[in-house]
Amino acid sequence: MASQGLSRLVLLTWTFLGVSNVLSDPTYETYYLEQKIDHFGFFEDATFRQRYLVSDTRWKKPGGPILFYTGNEGDITLFSNNTGFMWDIAEELGAMLVFAEHRYYGESMPYGNLSYSDPKHLNYLTSEQALADFAVLIRFMKESTEAKHSPVIAIGGSYGGMLAAWMRMKYPQYVVGALAASAPIWQFEDLVPCDLYYQIVTNDFKKSGSGCAESITKSWAAINRMAESDDGIRWLSSAFHLCSPLKSKEEVMAMKSWLSETWVNLAMVDYPYPASFLEPLPAWPIKEVCKYLKNPDLADKELLQNIFEAINVYYNYTGETPCLNTSQTAVGSLSDFGWSYQACTEMVMPFCSDGVNDMFEPQKWDFDAFSDECYKQWGVRPREKWIRTVYGGKNISAASNIIFSNGDLDPWSAGGVKQSLSDSLVAILIPDGAHHLDLRSNNPYDPKSVIQARALEVAYIKKWIQEYRQQLNI
Amino acid sequence: MASQGLSRLVLLTWTFLGVSNVLSDPTYETYYLEQKIDHFGFFEDATFRQRYLVSDTRWKKPGGPILFYTGNEGDITLFSNNTGFMWDIAEELGAMLVFAEHRYYGESMPYGNLSYSDPKHLNYLTSEQALADFAVLIRFMKESTEAKHSPVIAIGGSYGGMLAAWMRMKYPQYVVGALAASAPIWQFEDLVPCDLYYQIVTNDFKKSGSGCAESITKSWAAINRMAESDDGIRWLSSAFHLCSPLKSKEEVMAMKSWLSETWVNLAMVDYPYPASFLEPLPAWPIKEVCKYLKNPDLADKELLQNIFEAINVYYNYTGETPCLNTSQTAVGSLSDFGWSYQACTEMVMPFCSDGVNDMFEPQKWDFDAFSDECYKQWGVRPREKWIRTVYGGKNISAASNIIFSNGDLDPWSAGGVKQSLSDSLVAILIPDGAHHLDLRSNNPYDPKSVIQARALEVAYIKKWIQEYRQQLNI
Repeated sequence: MASQGLSRLVLLTWTFLGVSNVLSDPTYETYYLEQKIDHFGFFEDATFRQRYLVSDTRWKKPGGPILFYTGNEGDITLFSNNTGFMWDIAEELGAMLVFAEHRYYGESMPYGNLSYSDPKHLNYLTSEQALADFAVLIRFMKESTEAKHSPVIAIGGSYGGMLAAWMRMKYPQYVVGALAASAPIWQFEDLVPCDLYYQIVTNDFKKSGSGCAESITKSWAAINRMAESDDGIRWLSSAFHLCSPLKSKEEVMAMKSWLSETWVNLAMVDYPYPASFLEPLPAWPIKEVCKYLKNPDLADKELLQNIFEAINVYYNYTGETPCLNTSQTAVGSLSDFGWSYQACTEMVMPFCSDGVNDMFEPQKWDFDAFSDECYKQWGVRPREKWIRTVYGGKNISAASNIIFSNGDLDPWSAGGVKQSLSDSLVAILIPDGAHHLDLRSNNPYDPKSVIQARALEVAYIKKWIQEYRQQLNI
Repeated sequence: MASQGLSRLVLLTWTFLGVSNVLSDPTYETYYLEQKIDHFGFFEDATFRQRYLVSDTRWKKPGGPILFYTGNEGDITLFSNNTGFMWDIAEELGAMLVFAEHRYYGESMPYGNLSYSDPKHLNYLTSEQALADFAVLIRFMKESTEAKHSPVIAIGGSYGGMLAAWMRMKYPQYVVGALAASAPIWQFEDLVPCDLYYQIVTNDFKKSGSGCAESITKSWAAINRMAESDDGIRWLSSAFHLCSPLKSKEEVMAMKSWLSETWVNLAMVDYPYPASFLEPLPAWPIKEVCKYLKNPDLADKELLQNIFEAINVYYNYTGETPCLNTSQTAVGSLSDFGWSYQACTEMVMPFCSDGVNDMFEPQKWDFDAFSDECYKQWGVRPREKWIRTVYGGKNISAASNIIFSNGDLDPWSAGGVKQSLSDSLVAILIPDGAHHLDLRSNNPYDPKSVIQARALEVAYIKKWIQEYRQQLNI
């Protein structure tokens, strides 16, 4: 479970990578700001260069709003290239776009190549330090005459959405509001049931084809039976076209984790139009997958043959992949490495499955085992109660001006805010949406629900801008 | 200037010490909570024991409110013994009282005797870490059944008042409101004029007797003239009954700083009734002082003789002090040491005087000199822009439920919030109040303004409690 916990969490990131956007104007300038490596202590007084991207061609200066992407766990250019929503609305709002890179990702390395070398150098990779970077950067930008009266709106998706929401909670002086898309701010402790995440994945498959989820449910036992004999293991390697043949029962267990992650990934990127992920995917990819999984009552080999065809939709839609690699479900260039450290420190998200209400093998959440694995991998121990302590858990009603958008198809909506908490803490639900579909560019195949969601988001953003100007009397 | 900056800032603390209170019920239990030394990083995973005091004899459990003193720079027993207001209102509110010690003070030493040994061990002495300690402690207390639905009100004075306000801003989930008494949250950067502080001191002396402030204004030049000759320096040592005779012009300069601090201290503790400070003081001590300073036009020696009589009110009211010690204006047992470190890191408060609008020698605020002195003393450099960045400066309108109380006599009101910012960010002015008079016990000599202030404070606290219960529907 623990290893699954670790590896599954990296998924937060790379959905961003997924889909190529045709940006209306992807031009930006790259800047760097000297930031203290440690905002919260004075012994380490050194600085590093935080990268941020600025597009101001549509900015109505002075005083036009700033849409500020609170960068998450990856190279910031990925997010600027994959957050079409911001580019789409820049003109209408007369907005400057800023994409701020999260420390320890992309080019924003506090200690250069040594940043990930040991727990000491990793010590400043926390959400609080990242928020402080954003605060310092926004203050810096607002100290220029032209941006002095510019309202800033924080925008982010996934972990970036969590940061956007927390930015408004902790630094409301710098952001008049936040759009937190697919932000699982409650995926901590017992704030939500730990099995909800896998239930949502399961529902996506249930809805996408008769027999589909049931086939996957039954596949685990079929694999286990295969793993009982050397012949069976050899058969699995061959049937799944694995690049490296499985050598042991343990490797078969790891292969099951890889399959689980694949199903989860498909749920996150179940977008209504063809999109390039690690490899290109068709529109509504789960429906494509389910075409191969109509009959759960087949014998083991036939069932698993179908499972292979199904995951082939994900890994080999173009038909150009010679073999499948079970050690990879994420893009190499992205720092799932960094997120694994964050999950092993602050971002302790309990997941579990029971095999009854979901299509996965039963697995309990075991914090102690998770902690041991973290210590082995990173030399640090996670603090399971910290995030809720510092960011308030469900008691966030003192905050204001935050939109929490969630797609019903998205497993991460399990930890999201799905009911409005007040007039200004607003939940927007996107029934046909996968992981932060609303942050993506407009597309002819967009379902009505995401079009409405984006319109509502823009309306709130305009309201915040207006209120800010009224308050300043400008 | 820099040394003056350093030494003057310690004054924040020890006014608390000052006045003996007759507490209605000073009984409390002492507890300790294991806290992470570093809440914001995972490399230092060790813990320390934070002390806190609890008085629950008047607590209406379950669910009665908790008045939570956000401890500042000193032994927490000092604050529990000198915040009579909390003890006075416990019965009426059915409240539990909690006094939480600030890390690096009293018994709450992260590294025991090594805590102050070097910048590395001092690294975790920051306001953010202290607030996190409070959050962890409140969460811990609220996880007991009886306190689960207890609204918590943060209360503090001076730096403790700043912490109370910031607690509500940063952790509103844990405190329904805050009483920030005499909290100079704006004494940073250029948020308020740097000369206001000394002007308030000067006004206190001007109001307390004709010729009084003018005599002090003229005293500096008189001392300078004395310092020109060895005879003059000898005369000064003798006239001021100094324990250690002055040996150089530099020591005369230090003596002037000591005098300045004495005048400032008197302004802070200009209370309407006799009170024991370092030594006992009469009611309205500045009036007593000014009785000796009626004639500013005397010759140097006569003028300085009067100055000595005046400060003798402060240092030797009982007549039992054999000689005066220019190296001391604060109580030895209090950690002005700790505050000096905090002033050299986060709490960079610019002060200045011009000798025209105030009765002090002209001194500009010189950050660079201050920084150099900090580096010499502590091996760290202050960050002058940090506090405003992290706590919002004047842009705090997104916060709610904070009372900022300030006394007109108190020099620290210079950096305080003296106008209400919204319906729930309320300024209470106490025209006849010195440094957080409102936090002191009821006294027959209390001016009407402080009686009214306390009544209003209690009304707001009750309102917050009521709103919290309405929200929870209990």
